[in-house]
Amino acid sequence: MRHSSLFTAISTLFASPKYEAKYPINDLAVTPQMGWNNWNAFACSVNEHLLLSTAEKLNVVGLRDAGYKYIVLDDCWSVGRDGKGNLQYDPEKFPRGMKYVADQLHSMGYLFGMYSDAGSYTCANYAGSLGYEEQDAKTFASWEIDYLKYDNCFNEGLCGTPKISADRFRVMKDALRATGRSVLYAMCNWGEDFPWRWAHTIANSYRMGGDIYDSFSRPDARCPCTGEEGDHCSYAGSHCSVMNILNKAAYVVHNSKIGAWNDLDMLEVGNGGMDDEEYKTHFSMWAALKSPLLMGNDVNTIDAKSLSILSNPAVLAISQDPAGIPVSRMWRYYVNDTDAYGQGEIQMWSGPLFGGDQVVVLLNGGNRTRMMNATLEEIFCHEMGIAPEIKEDWNIYDLWANRMDAATAQSIIDGTGLAPADVYYNVTKLSFKDGLATGNPTLLGKLIGMVEADGVIKREVPRHGVAMMRLRRSKTRLRAASAHQVPLGL
Amino acid sequence: MRHSSLFTAISTLFASPKYEAKYPINDLAVTPQMGWNNWNAFACSVNEHLLLSTAEKLNVVGLRDAGYKYIVLDDCWSVGRDGKGNLQYDPEKFPRGMKYVADQLHSMGYLFGMYSDAGSYTCANYAGSLGYEEQDAKTFASWEIDYLKYDNCFNEGLCGTPKISADRFRVMKDALRATGRSVLYAMCNWGEDFPWRWAHTIANSYRMGGDIYDSFSRPDARCPCTGEEGDHCSYAGSHCSVMNILNKAAYVVHNSKIGAWNDLDMLEVGNGGMDDEEYKTHFSMWAALKSPLLMGNDVNTIDAKSLSILSNPAVLAISQDPAGIPVSRMWRYYVNDTDAYGQGEIQMWSGPLFGGDQVVVLLNGGNRTRMMNATLEEIFCHEMGIAPEIKEDWNIYDLWANRMDAATAQSIIDGTGLAPADVYYNVTKLSFKDGLATGNPTLLGKLIGMVEADGVIKREVPRHGVAMMRLRRSKTRLRAASAHQVPLGL
Amino acid sequence: MRHSSLFTAISTLFASPKYEAKYPINDLAVTPQMGWNNWNAFACSVNEHLLLSTAEKLNVVGLRDAGYKYIVLDDCWSVGRDGKGNLQYDPEKFPRGMKYVADQLHSMGYLFGMYSDAGSYTCANYAGSLGYEEQDAKTFASWEIDYLKYDNCFNEGLCGTPKISADRFRVMKDALRATGRSVLYAMCNWGEDFPWRWAHTIANSYRMGGDIYDSFSRPDARCPCTGEEGDHCSYAGSHCSVMNILNKAAYVVHNSKIGAWNDLDMLEVGNGGMDDEEYKTHFSMWAALKSPLLMGNDVNTIDAKSLSILSNPAVLAISQDPAGIPVSRMWRYYVNDTDAYGQGEIQMWSGPLFGGDQVVVLLNGGNRTRMMNATLEEIFCHEMGIAPEIKEDWNIYDLWANRMDAATAQSIIDGTGLAPADVYYNVTKLSFKDGLATGNPTLLGKLIGMVEADGVIKREVPRHGVAMMRLRRSKTRLRAASAHQVPLGL
Amino acid sequence: MRHSSLFTAISTLFASPKYEAKYPINDLAVTPQMGWNNWNAFACSVNEHLLLSTAEKLNVVGLRDAGYKYIVLDDCWSVGRDGKGNLQYDPEKFPRGMKYVADQLHSMGYLFGMYSDAGSYTCANYAGSLGYEEQDAKTFASWEIDYLKYDNCFNEGLCGTPKISADRFRVMKDALRATGRSVLYAMCNWGEDFPWRWAHTIANSYRMGGDIYDSFSRPDARCPCTGEEGDHCSYAGSHCSVMNILNKAAYVVHNSKIGAWNDLDMLEVGNGGMDDEEYKTHFSMWAALKSPLLMGNDVNTIDAKSLSILSNPAVLAISQDPAGIPVSRMWRYYVNDTDAYGQGEIQMWSGPLFGGDQVVVLLNGGNRTRMMNATLEEIFCHEMGIAPEIKEDWNIYDLWANRMDAATAQSIIDGTGLAPADVYYNVTKLSFKDGLATGNPTLLGKLIGMVEADGVIKREVPRHGVAMMRLRRSKTRLRAASAHQVPLGL
Repeated sequence: MRHSSLFTAISTLFASPKYEAKYPINDLAVTPQMGWNNWNAFACSVNEHLLLSTAEKLNVVGLRDAGYKYIVLDDCWSVGRDGKGNLQYDPEKFPRGMKYVADQLHSMGYLFGMYSDAGSYTCANYAGSLGYEEQDAKTFASWEIDYLKYDNCFNEGLCGTPKISADRFRVMKDALRATGRSVLYAMCNWGEDFPWRWAHTIANSYRMGGDIYDSFSRPDARCPCTGEEGDHCSYAGSHCSVMNILNKAAYVVHNSKIGAWNDLDMLEVGNGGMDDEEYKTHFSMWAALKSPLLMGNDVNTIDAKSLSILSNPAVLAISQDPAGIPVSRMWRYYVNDTDAYGQGEIQMWSGPLFGGDQVVVLLNGGNRTRMMNATLEEIFCHEMGIAPEIKEDWNIYDLWANRMDAATAQSIIDGTGLAPADVYYNVTKLSFKDGLATGNPTLLGKLIGMVEADGVIKREVPRHGVAMMRLRRSKTRLRAASAHQVPLGL
Repeated sequence: MRHSSLFTAISTLFASPKYEAKYPINDLAVTPQMGWNNWNAFACSVNEHLLLSTAEKLNVVGLRDAGYKYIVLDDCWSVGRDGKGNLQYDPEKFPRGMKYVADQLHSMGYLFGMYSDAGSYTCANYAGSLGYEEQDAKTFASWEIDYLKYDNCFNEGLCGTPKISADRFRVMKDALRATGRSVLYAMCNWGEDFPWRWAHTIANSYRMGGDIYDSFSRPDARCPCTGEEGDHCSYAGSHCSVMNILNKAAYVVHNSKIGAWNDLDMLEVGNGGMDDEEYKTHFSMWAALKSPLLMGNDVNTIDAKSLSILSNPAVLAISQDPAGIPVSRMWRYYVNDTDAYGQGEIQMWSGPLFGGDQVVVLLNGGNRTRMMNATLEEIFCHEMGIAPEIKEDWNIYDLWANRMDAATAQSIIDGTGLAPADVYYNVTKLSFKDGLATGNPTLLGKLIGMVEADGVIKREVPRHGVAMMRLRRSKTRLRAASAHQVPLGL
Repeated sequence: MRHSSLFTAISTLFASPKYEAKYPINDLAVTPQMGWNNWNAFACSVNEHLLLSTAEKLNVVGLRDAGYKYIVLDDCWSVGRDGKGNLQYDPEKFPRGMKYVADQLHSMGYLFGMYSDAGSYTCANYAGSLGYEEQDAKTFASWEIDYLKYDNCFNEGLCGTPKISADRFRVMKDALRATGRSVLYAMCNWGEDFPWRWAHTIANSYRMGGDIYDSFSRPDARCPCTGEEGDHCSYAGSHCSVMNILNKAAYVVHNSKIGAWNDLDMLEVGNGGMDDEEYKTHFSMWAALKSPLLMGNDVNTIDAKSLSILSNPAVLAISQDPAGIPVSRMWRYYVNDTDAYGQGEIQMWSGPLFGGDQVVVLLNGGNRTRMMNATLEEIFCHEMGIAPEIKEDWNIYDLWANRMDAATAQSIIDGTGLAPADVYYNVTKLSFKDGLATGNPTLLGKLIGMVEADGVIKREVPRHGVAMMRLRRSKTRLRAASAHQVPLGL
Repeated sequence: MRHSSLFTAISTLFASPKYEAKYPINDLAVTPQMGWNNWNAFACSVNEHLLLSTAEKLNVVGLRDAGYKYIVLDDCWSVGRDGKGNLQYDPEKFPRGMKYVADQLHSMGYLFGMYSDAGSYTCANYAGSLGYEEQDAKTFASWEIDYLKYDNCFNEGLCGTPKISADRFRVMKDALRATGRSVLYAMCNWGEDFPWRWAHTIANSYRMGGDIYDSFSRPDARCPCTGEEGDHCSYAGSHCSVMNILNKAAYVVHNSKIGAWNDLDMLEVGNGGMDDEEYKTHFSMWAALKSPLLMGNDVNTIDAKSLSILSNPAVLAISQDPAGIPVSRMWRYYVNDTDAYGQGEIQMWSGPLFGGDQVVVLLNGGNRTRMMNATLEEIFCHEMGIAPEIKEDWNIYDLWANRMDAATAQSIIDGTGLAPADVYYNVTKLSFKDGLATGNPTLLGKLIGMVEADGVIKREVPRHGVAMMRLRRSKTRLRAASAHQVPLGL
């Protein structure tokens, strides 16, 4: 069987009532994990209060119920090992211990994630787990964690071929399984040794490149890889912009499988380095590419725009779509209206959704608003023959048109208005899968028109922005003599 | 000895009456295997009926006797292992078991191929053979298979150097040999770790790159490798167009040896994504490059044009030529008349055939019909000195001029006309080798002219098409004052 | 934790009174090592007199007290092994043995470095330490060395993955530690297998590329790597120019950590192949990138200009800054005024210093003097959000403006003027860290102006030269209506 | 010690009377080996008569005494192994066995080379030595061979890192040494895994790239590597032109060491695919780059021009110069007058010789005769400082000016004229080293002028040709007011 067809195969199997999932690792990450991680905003400044107050705030603003279930503590929480080699939490930062944190988070409806490193030290020079995998997994299980982010610093050179890296990261996978506790295993080896080729039997997610930073397109010497021609770049680096990451992901993201996702790195939404359109693009693309969605902002000071991005149910329904198929980049062109960093390009991404819908994203990486087009022929591209979808009519739903307005968002943040669950989708009540199955309109965005068979979609897209759409088969074929796209009220 | 000269050496040896073949693996694939595989058209939708009805239809339309002997079942046929670890076929898909299928196919004059994977799972998440090689080989032998396609998904990171990959795939080779049954071993590791450098002692064929899809030239981000400069690309990918595959093959295909062929992936002829000229080019090049020829279409609904491509004896005689020497790309130029995907180039490929003939292909990857030229100096390029063939006169046989007409093809499909064996070459009756040795005219194409010593061949070649020719030494030198190419009636 | 943020983390930790350093290797190289190595100027022409006379001269001209503490003997000192396998020094070159040299150097206030090779032979064909690591480490310890340069010639092919190289070099690290003696371990494997990814737990410094030669920008076929796209170049080479090395370092140097520095190779200052501006650039950049600073000139014939470069306390204070954070290249542009070798580009590098200062270097690789600009936005680029430093006012200190004049330098060389310690900074009396903590003005350079919030720094930079500046927060905000940069007296 | 300085170091050591050579492998190949190999002209058509008649002819035409001592039998000489696993020679080709051949050759003043392969089969499918190294080495020693060419076909994937390849080829080195017989070990692994980085302790020579073919500049898809940026190309290939090989060698050839040479592959001189200027260039460059010189032509039909190339003592004195330092490419420029294959470039190579001379080659890869210049500054480029040689005056000797005329060469071939030893240099009588030491004029070429300090050399160089010169310090400085180059009678 051709591996490229795994998407179709899994999608088919998934839709079958007789299908029993046999996920390679565990039964987690059936859709990309969602949650919050402290690193981007707080780095080493961690403690019990930060985690619990953030969890509380996430609850208040409705983001827990929007789907962000994992609270992940990153590096800097330990003070090394005791005489028996057991990892010790920092008693000043966590005076009541990690089990207490886990209990509190569990009682609040969250899942709890922690961090360690497949090396001698963590990236911030704390004790690493290399050589202590079994012992540390037991410690983590005793603290009742639900998620482990597992980093790659100080790895003693145990890299250079897929085998060497896989062998190292497999040890912790096996150790976690041996504890009997169900722990989502998020491998963070920055794309070294091409994990998209082998990590599906190792981890629930795997970073596919260097660290993100809070910039839309600025190139940085510390992020030398571009991903062209299959990424033979030897150093993943850091300070990778949103566009750099997307352009690397284009070559590998289709290797994601249900339960084993390419991780594009944590979100920067709300951290201040990009404008609103750029954050929308960042968030839209991470969702469409089925990256884990780990918020990286300071939730206690969240602003209205960030909340209305992070909570957008129509976009989250793409991320959490049961088919679990990342979009593919169908075309890419360079444009002349480059930005301050000399970058300028436009792209179109597309991919199938559960139930026969299709998601389409027009990405404008140029420096000015432009009209963008995509034909159905470009959107639907099968491995074999001409895609029959081209000969159908499709309703177009804009996934940002129903974005919550700023006043509403602010009132939610302030606790002065409606309850979040009254405003956006509550996944705690009804899963995305069930919501989609029942056609919950909140998850669909806004119907803005139709594209007829052989037609073309035209949208105005702002600078560094996206038009993100769900296409759904039209049941009543409209007749229009001269145009293939029939506006309904955009 | 220089490895590049192996072709000459083998060809010389082969022509010697005293030569006893000592093939590295087994005595199979003396010429590239021909057959049908269900994947491209049916993916996981497999069952006994599909295989047997296809075999029946192939027989009816004469493709079995045209040389397509292997019926290969791809992924999705199992339901895992029993308590003793034995692979179990899916009883719903194969109610009478695999041995029954094999028996039926054997009785119909076919050879039977199955599929497994050198990993923990197959590409469609079924049970893989990694760690079960000996047991599975015995199972396959007990089912009396004749061919094993062996895939590369979920390989646990056992790749990264030729040694790691070779060690993994060698296990199944040894296991198959240990069964005592003669099984063609088709390695499908997508060119990972450069199998053209080491797979000759491992497998009868080895995929040299990412998965094909049904497009002539459309680039796709999921197929990032281009093969330039020896292919240091780390991810083979999928959605590789015909031109992408050819441009990668150009750098490595000459490493094919008799019994160990570079596999360019299964055919898309008849699947609907290319036009007739493009399918002719696809088929011509796969034959000339000595790729295995596994049809990938739905034979039960085959159309006339596809049949007349797949059955073309003059082209198949190139594929199955006893010398077993792939053509080499002698030149490549970019052209300005690019197609919708921005692609446009012209190429000339050439290579020696058994008995001193030469095959030449002019490939027009541009977007319009053009005149193309090739001098004898370009066509004949020896490792040492000036090729003496340049100083000879050559008759030119066009390999597509005698293509079966659509009406005849349709009548064969409909069973309303002549029997196939009366129309095209019946390899079941007389092997290609014997037919060539006796100068069977069906295998030669149509004599269209002559090129004199130092001359140039000129042909009009359609958009995305080829002119494919066999050159044979002219016994009567024609005299023509001003032109080196003498038309005979094209 | 993101590895890219290690700088911040370490810097934070370092500033904390409660922090106890846990360096991976030992407690050495807290800042990049400084010293002298005989190779660049003397190659194999080594003996006791050379080392001791150089040490004496360094003392006289004040370079020992400027911070150059290590006297490192390179290759060619041995005559092989005795019957028990012990390395034997060459009795003609070192009639009183190495312990005598060490004693003398120690008594003069120096530390003593020697050389061996992680292969069968040293680069000059002397006995190598591969397979003799433990024995040789004991020998070196018995001679009371303080530093080991460990080369990579004749390594028997023990390279090709980080694991293979790390395993080989780790042996000597462990052997040195086992002796109980504190020995700075300088790994010289020319960047093979990407040591910036793994050498932090192996060595105190690690060469990151091919050998330097005494040229500013001349390309040489023997140095084929350029470092673009993460450096997948397989042969590090030699004859690498200053600009070549910088352009490779740009992609990896940020991986330096306190105690484990990327080594850009020894200095060429004073060797005659570059002009004064080029040597200033070379030295400035090596300091700013936190490379070890090993002088490579003939100190006994040092000229005034070289002395005034090598002793510049304001630049050395950058090299030895306690934060230990290399500058990053913030931008790079090609220019049309290329030099005789066709090279021409301008760059801006920037990085944080201990206590909140910032170092900025404008590098003019073009062929003529030019005005160069850098905005605060370009200079300060955080991983998250907009850098708040952009909204502050900064005093600008030029780090070369107080360069010692030639007459003074010559009088020091001649011993006819002031004592060096009266002219430049004496690190033997007061460490850079303490000097910086107390605001010693010698370490700051010359205050030349201020740049206001959102402002731009403009400097005239000579051909192949730099403007190197320390920025320090301005306590009294100056008011200037039309300009953001206020000159104070440049 | 810097590896790049090994040349200088070895040269210095070599010149020292106290130096005792300690070559890594054996005491052979002190200069690059010279001889004849049957492959290029005869491939598998080998037998006793070919070897002995060739040896006889080489003797007659004086090429044995010109230095070509090794007669090397390539592939296709065996009929497999006997019951005890011993390699068996083909009794039809070698009716009196290999020992007889060796004896005959030894008696004629030659050394005898044979061939095997570090794989399961040789490149022509004969028995390979992988797993039989010790046994085969004993067999070869019993036949009293003096040279082993050891190929790389069918290596079972034992490649991919330097370690894997080195481990495989080291086995035969050790096996040969264990026999006690002195056998030159010529490793032929086509540059796989970068042998210039590790083969010095394994072999006396090592192929650095793909197979040569008889073309000056024609690119061929089967030779995809170009060597740019340190050669990360994964497939060495074949059909590599002279210019392709030179352009790869430029990046690595300086890693050759005395006793361990980069092998650019066998010579094509006389095989007919290049013109006289091109063969002169091919031969000049192979000599200047210190490649082994294995003639690959049919000596029994040698023509006058080929003889006068292959016997040129002034060029051979460069190849066999005792300093053993390959030239380096000092510059390379593309030109517009490209040839039929679109290739066009000019290059200047230069390197030191024994005794302080310098060899300089101006290579005109353009399509027309041109004037070419090289300044002393370009010719002399030291690692440190400005080369003092630039400030000296140099006599210029043209190394092709005294080329034997065609009539003389033909008379030697015909046996109708002078004895070869009366015409060109007889190395059997006086070694190159001794001849150079005593200033034998035959080895110097023709004095054609002088270049003064800071001067420039100007030469007219034909299409695809070279000007090859030896520079020797002028003892009497000539005075010329306006020109730095003083013609003496060119």
